[in-house]
Amino acid sequence: MVPHLVTALTGPLLDLEEKIIAATPAIERWFRLEWQEHTPPFYCSVDLRNAGYKLAPVDTNLFPAGFNYLATEMLPLSVQAAMAAIDKYCPDARNLLLIPEVKDRHPRYLENIARLMQIFRQTGLHVRLGSLSPEITQPTPLALQDGNMLVIEPLVRSPNGRRLGLKDFDPCTILINNDLSAGIPDILQNIHEQSLLPPLHAGWALRRKSNHLTAYDEVAKKFGKLIGVDPWMLNPFHAKCDEVDVHSGDGLDCLATNVDALLAKIRKKYKEYGIKDQKPFVIIKPDAGTYGKGIISVRDAAELKDLTAAQRERMSIIKDGKVVSDLNVQEGVPTFESIKDSVAEPVVYMIDRYVVGGFYRVHAERGVEQNLNAPGSQYMPLAFAQQHAVPDVKAKPGTAAPNRFYVYGVVARLALLAASLEMERTDPNPEVY
Amino acid sequence: MVPHLVTALTGPLLDLEEKIIAATPAIERWFRLEWQEHTPPFYCSVDLRNAGYKLAPVDTNLFPAGFNYLATEMLPLSVQAAMAAIDKYCPDARNLLLIPEVKDRHPRYLENIARLMQIFRQTGLHVRLGSLSPEITQPTPLALQDGNMLVIEPLVRSPNGRRLGLKDFDPCTILINNDLSAGIPDILQNIHEQSLLPPLHAGWALRRKSNHLTAYDEVAKKFGKLIGVDPWMLNPFHAKCDEVDVHSGDGLDCLATNVDALLAKIRKKYKEYGIKDQKPFVIIKPDAGTYGKGIISVRDAAELKDLTAAQRERMSIIKDGKVVSDLNVQEGVPTFESIKDSVAEPVVYMIDRYVVGGFYRVHAERGVEQNLNAPGSQYMPLAFAQQHAVPDVKAKPGTAAPNRFYVYGVVARLALLAASLEMERTDPNPEVY
Repeated sequence: MVPHLVTALTGPLLDLEEKIIAATPAIERWFRLEWQEHTPPFYCSVDLRNAGYKLAPVDTNLFPAGFNYLATEMLPLSVQAAMAAIDKYCPDARNLLLIPEVKDRHPRYLENIARLMQIFRQTGLHVRLGSLSPEITQPTPLALQDGNMLVIEPLVRSPNGRRLGLKDFDPCTILINNDLSAGIPDILQNIHEQSLLPPLHAGWALRRKSNHLTAYDEVAKKFGKLIGVDPWMLNPFHAKCDEVDVHSGDGLDCLATNVDALLAKIRKKYKEYGIKDQKPFVIIKPDAGTYGKGIISVRDAAELKDLTAAQRERMSIIKDGKVVSDLNVQEGVPTFESIKDSVAEPVVYMIDRYVVGGFYRVHAERGVEQNLNAPGSQYMPLAFAQQHAVPDVKAKPGTAAPNRFYVYGVVARLALLAASLEMERTDPNPEVY
Repeated sequence: MVPHLVTALTGPLLDLEEKIIAATPAIERWFRLEWQEHTPPFYCSVDLRNAGYKLAPVDTNLFPAGFNYLATEMLPLSVQAAMAAIDKYCPDARNLLLIPEVKDRHPRYLENIARLMQIFRQTGLHVRLGSLSPEITQPTPLALQDGNMLVIEPLVRSPNGRRLGLKDFDPCTILINNDLSAGIPDILQNIHEQSLLPPLHAGWALRRKSNHLTAYDEVAKKFGKLIGVDPWMLNPFHAKCDEVDVHSGDGLDCLATNVDALLAKIRKKYKEYGIKDQKPFVIIKPDAGTYGKGIISVRDAAELKDLTAAQRERMSIIKDGKVVSDLNVQEGVPTFESIKDSVAEPVVYMIDRYVVGGFYRVHAERGVEQNLNAPGSQYMPLAFAQQHAVPDVKAKPGTAAPNRFYVYGVVARLALLAASLEMERTDPNPEVY
């Protein structure tokens, strides 16, 4: 079941990992206390990059798909965490309404939806699917590849307009698995009697990566202090340029300046830590939303002058036709992990405050510096069986796979905590949510 | 890993099970709402007897041993539930003090202690062992069969007398795994600043089975109404006789009357439900504490006159030399489950409100009506992988093992809820705990 992970299972424990493992009691206590103050997102997945010398989250997804890639043996962990989450929002819940992506009918995405329905059914809820698509005007079957059938139904507002549901189905919890990058549909607005999770401002119509990165800076700083490591070990440098138009060239100066400044900072850190076999690079990402699209990798500001038409196209068009204007420049973190000859990056899944599983995203045709969330990627489920474990600190380096998984769970939870701060601070209407 | 359970895996779904499975959403919601009102015991194990026509808890243990028999693959479920529990009592905890049995040095019991320490270490706590024995005056090693070593240390009250700990170890949570049947030691008295779990009145020095049975009557009645079944399906009849002295014969009249009355009530139920191949019997148990000792099985009140000296001895002496006086008479529930040719009964483990695993207690030399918690019993861990599952109601009878495990988890949680009510109602000092 667990694939042979060339590095995760055989590589030596890194200095950072050793420090995290040694500080486990302090770390777990710190998380407990943080969760007294902040509410974790209902669910979340975090893409990590492990460069050996640093381990950092590179994407924090508040509408996670991919639950179908988690090891089925570990499903009870998801169910237990979902029970805790439901208990918090809606103890008297009978029904949960799940709103999936509108256009994604890929068999793998439908399997994710089926898995989420299974998890919440197993907490004892009635679970049904509601569609944001105007084309769904009646219950519509969606065939899964295994022969099972899902049914998606039109959303209905209650006669008094205050509640959202389906025909004869009044949910307490409405769980959104649609990242809302196309905007916030009217039918989701002004719902105050039900738990709409995550809140609407988590959607890419409103959410901005830069807010998350700022919150993460703060979390990484506190955590770095807690365990006595340079926060850079956990946090890529980043900067932001507003209103860049890669076609006209407006704003490219800002981009070039930031790229140069970041590369210089990275070079300095590489020198400080004796990192010699890695050449600094940065990633440029749109501030609003992505499906792994609109991302380019740059080693020198000069490359910005020579962007190909295709690259410009990639940067300007992201999901649902929204044109890029605000761009983040972020330190590139190569992955040093591979499975057979393919580069791999870990993805960690959480429900409420709990790590419930993860997998490796593997791409045979991509390099160690490239974004792996791209067509052709494969998924290797990991049981993450010991993900909560205080690993055996006496284990010989390289013999204790769970060590690495625990560390992944810690860094993913740092991103989770940052998402929690981000959601608090960007809440347009704090007293409503 | 999962042993071949002749009945659990191949037997048809029983009427009661079908009703429980069909009512899952209502049941889970009801539990959620009950846990809003009542605090579950920190941990608990429940012995069940499945007679086919009825499924009932027969022992609710608030100081559960046997965590070592749970399937290791399912350990993350225990860790996650323990995290939730610690979070509730002591979010700022760094240290947990575990107090084991004083005299039990059986390798299996030490493995239970080692497993509990592992679970709580994996929540990120420092865990150490404290001894109630005056013989432990310095840190003392306890060898495990696998070659590892535990260390047990003398308990120390803080200089101001308000806190309990070890030398240089001040715990927030004190977890007792000693059933206190020998009385409540002075060193555990008047601890108000720390979480002493379970509370002292859960110990057999104070606890009485009859209080639990009364609370369970109430829970079973509510639950029976919820799912539309006769509560008798889940609850053995019972009665109590105070101050029985089996040696002098004082109080034996009460016992005989109750035995006769119970047997008559059972016969009536058997007739009502067409149970023909089972002859009614009752179990007589001391009201205070047991290790499976002091229990006898009776088919006719006349047998009470002919108790052998050995039976009288068994009934009068229970753990740590306490003489029996108050006795419970309880409807006997035979087990219809077996593994190979041995009779088996399921035991379900819970931490906080969560089912975290279970096993079958199997005894090759005992009959279907006998107590299996006796020397010679063996333990077959069950993954209980789907214990939370709303089972697949469309599964053909006999094909879906998880169905039965879910039902076991439900009935065990009924006993857990009864224990919660029992603890509330018997609390000698409600404002302290």
